[in-house]
Amino acid sequence: MEYFGLLSSSGNHGRVATVLVSQMRNNATSPNIKVDFNQSTGVAVLSMQSPPVNSLSLDLLTELCINLEKLEMDRACRGLIITSNQPKVFSAGLDILEMYGKSPERCGEFWRAVQEMWLKMYGSNMVTIAAINGSSPAGGCLLSLTCDYRIMVDNPRYSIGLNETLLGIVAPFWFKETMANTVGHRNTEMALELGLLYSPSEALKIGLVDQLVPQDQLLTTATETMKKWLAIPDHARQITKSMMRKPTLDKLTSNREADIQNFVSFITKDSIQKSLRMYLEMLKKRKA
Amino acid sequence: MEYFGLLSSSGNHGRVATVLVSQMRNNATSPNIKVDFNQSTGVAVLSMQSPPVNSLSLDLLTELCINLEKLEMDRACRGLIITSNQPKVFSAGLDILEMYGKSPERCGEFWRAVQEMWLKMYGSNMVTIAAINGSSPAGGCLLSLTCDYRIMVDNPRYSIGLNETLLGIVAPFWFKETMANTVGHRNTEMALELGLLYSPSEALKIGLVDQLVPQDQLLTTATETMKKWLAIPDHARQITKSMMRKPTLDKLTSNREADIQNFVSFITKDSIQKSLRMYLEMLKKRKA
Amino acid sequence: MEYFGLLSSSGNHGRVATVLVSQMRNNATSPNIKVDFNQSTGVAVLSMQSPPVNSLSLDLLTELCINLEKLEMDRACRGLIITSNQPKVFSAGLDILEMYGKSPERCGEFWRAVQEMWLKMYGSNMVTIAAINGSSPAGGCLLSLTCDYRIMVDNPRYSIGLNETLLGIVAPFWFKETMANTVGHRNTEMALELGLLYSPSEALKIGLVDQLVPQDQLLTTATETMKKWLAIPDHARQITKSMMRKPTLDKLTSNREADIQNFVSFITKDSIQKSLRMYLEMLKKRKA
Repeated sequence: MEYFGLLSSSGNHGRVATVLVSQMRNNATSPNIKVDFNQSTGVAVLSMQSPPVNSLSLDLLTELCINLEKLEMDRACRGLIITSNQPKVFSAGLDILEMYGKSPERCGEFWRAVQEMWLKMYGSNMVTIAAINGSSPAGGCLLSLTCDYRIMVDNPRYSIGLNETLLGIVAPFWFKETMANTVGHRNTEMALELGLLYSPSEALKIGLVDQLVPQDQLLTTATETMKKWLAIPDHARQITKSMMRKPTLDKLTSNREADIQNFVSFITKDSIQKSLRMYLEMLKKRKA
Repeated sequence: MEYFGLLSSSGNHGRVATVLVSQMRNNATSPNIKVDFNQSTGVAVLSMQSPPVNSLSLDLLTELCINLEKLEMDRACRGLIITSNQPKVFSAGLDILEMYGKSPERCGEFWRAVQEMWLKMYGSNMVTIAAINGSSPAGGCLLSLTCDYRIMVDNPRYSIGLNETLLGIVAPFWFKETMANTVGHRNTEMALELGLLYSPSEALKIGLVDQLVPQDQLLTTATETMKKWLAIPDHARQITKSMMRKPTLDKLTSNREADIQNFVSFITKDSIQKSLRMYLEMLKKRKA
Repeated sequence: MEYFGLLSSSGNHGRVATVLVSQMRNNATSPNIKVDFNQSTGVAVLSMQSPPVNSLSLDLLTELCINLEKLEMDRACRGLIITSNQPKVFSAGLDILEMYGKSPERCGEFWRAVQEMWLKMYGSNMVTIAAINGSSPAGGCLLSLTCDYRIMVDNPRYSIGLNETLLGIVAPFWFKETMANTVGHRNTEMALELGLLYSPSEALKIGLVDQLVPQDQLLTTATETMKKWLAIPDHARQITKSMMRKPTLDKLTSNREADIQNFVSFITKDSIQKSLRMYLEMLKKRKA
């Protein structure tokens, strides 16, 4: 089973992105993210395109948040499909280079961006569907879990899971609660303690994803599914979604600074930095 | 798939009910409810018979609560089977006519009766079994969910679910918690946001009902199941039931007035009243 | 289906245990418990050997706690496999003789030992695996549920479950939460109210155990499984385990005296003592 590491080094800092041209209204273009908004359906497709593996760097997270905020404020946009333009990977998760050898201030800034992405996605008023067209470890799995519905390409080489412990780091309580709200307490306990990565069929079995499709049917299935969700009156669906998720959202909102403090003091420990260095060296060897 | 609407107009206000005659002790008769209490087994069968579809009107809810209270206080009554005398429907849910064009005071009175029914059923010391012999949307599903065990007739034309969002209204937090306590957080999130109605086999799969049987075996199966439950010492079973359900019951008990206030201010909104009017007109056309 | 009763009379008070001789470092020997610690793997195998059915008497619980504390403090010990040296039974649960005809003080002392066992096991920093080689009702099931992973011998004559209500007593809230954290709210509600004992295949289906194996593969499977768990960095796994379990542990820790008080006032009631006496007489007849 191939996977892209828990967290991967993006190796694309400073890369000059191709600027994409689009005729459609409101289509945001930014180095690492492409947004296609279809005004007639009210659905935006947001594609991550940060080579090689859509690592969630501070840059990518910031762009993601800016685009999410724009779409959220656009009353014409009712649904969001999130996917990847990179081959074989949805997102490899948090960028390890943002956590290695960085100052506490910078680590804190990074973590605040991770929180912001989660708060915006998990609390979105839009219908959100993850079209998972490749592996989705750690932060990539979290991003999927924030959506209302998850469709994954049925390729046994892909995997998904919160595998933080494999690297010696720990998923924080809000990762845990997002997963437990999806697959229950016991599955979450085992998955997080063992850092389990699930094949698509295993993920379907425990409810970590909702549906499997062949690669070439992913976007059409996501689009058809979106229609079903958009058939529900927005206000009733939004109040209901908030009722389901607000307790979890509130826990982070009211503990945000303490959560950043916890992350920074943990990640800057010598022992943890050493683990990250060994992991980075292992990644380099694998590439060579 | 046929169903009886989210909430349906009962159309039977002022109807004079046939008064049923029964030889058995303690058998309550009221216009819309028939109770057969078998003293030798300690089991009462409560049948809703409010044509055409057992809509939960203020009248029906009030009668239901009066009968529940009587049975609860009768120490000889240890078990309750709840079912319908109407064909093809268990209960169509809350009566929409109680929410349309009514004064805030009347809406509040109605909602208090819905709360009362839930509090009495979910907190009952009796063993409660739902014998679901027809469709059971919205409030009908809620009534089923309050029971200790649910047996449904295996007819694919019947459906069950909390489908409030389909009409633009919202299941309150205690509907949500009752469902989440039964089928878990994730199933509840999807079901409530999409207003899902499940076929009997789908309902069995997610645990929304516990068992499917052919129509003609429904009451015998309910009676056999009741024997198993009554074999457990009452005091131990009751303390255990209370331990499982008290946290959820307490949440409503301590927020009852605020919950009524929320409901009244939501349901009397112009936009919601307009949704209800459109729904009623659609129902009239369907009947014609 | 054979089972060893909810709680069973151990009938081995005052028995002089064979003192086991072992060459291995740190191997604790005590009358009712045998510990084999393998220093090269870091794994201890703790076997209960309290004839006839490993009833959890005050003596056995005390020895269990002492051994657990020793292993927990030994940094070389990273994993614990808990099993039985008695045929056909893992543990028959709490010793009924500790609750029948005893003074309130003695009952309280006993209950404190039950709490202590649970707190030590559910909160252990070690990887804990239950190798369930026989029936495991009531307290035996609880002991299994405190572990990180449960492997059971696939023999349909064995059963497992929290069947307290069958005897007219009640599983306390922390038994309930341990089970709900494993199999969810609804399974727990039904299991506790009905005092359900599950066959191995039924237990696997609802997630009460994680894996079934033939008798002769139990310890090798437990040992292989342990390797997988020990491959995860200890500190990350331990922080994650604590995140999952601390809320439940804290509830008992902060209510410990009240919980003892509740137990003592319940168990010393005349009606409950009468139930226990009848149960003991039934056990005696069965033996005769």
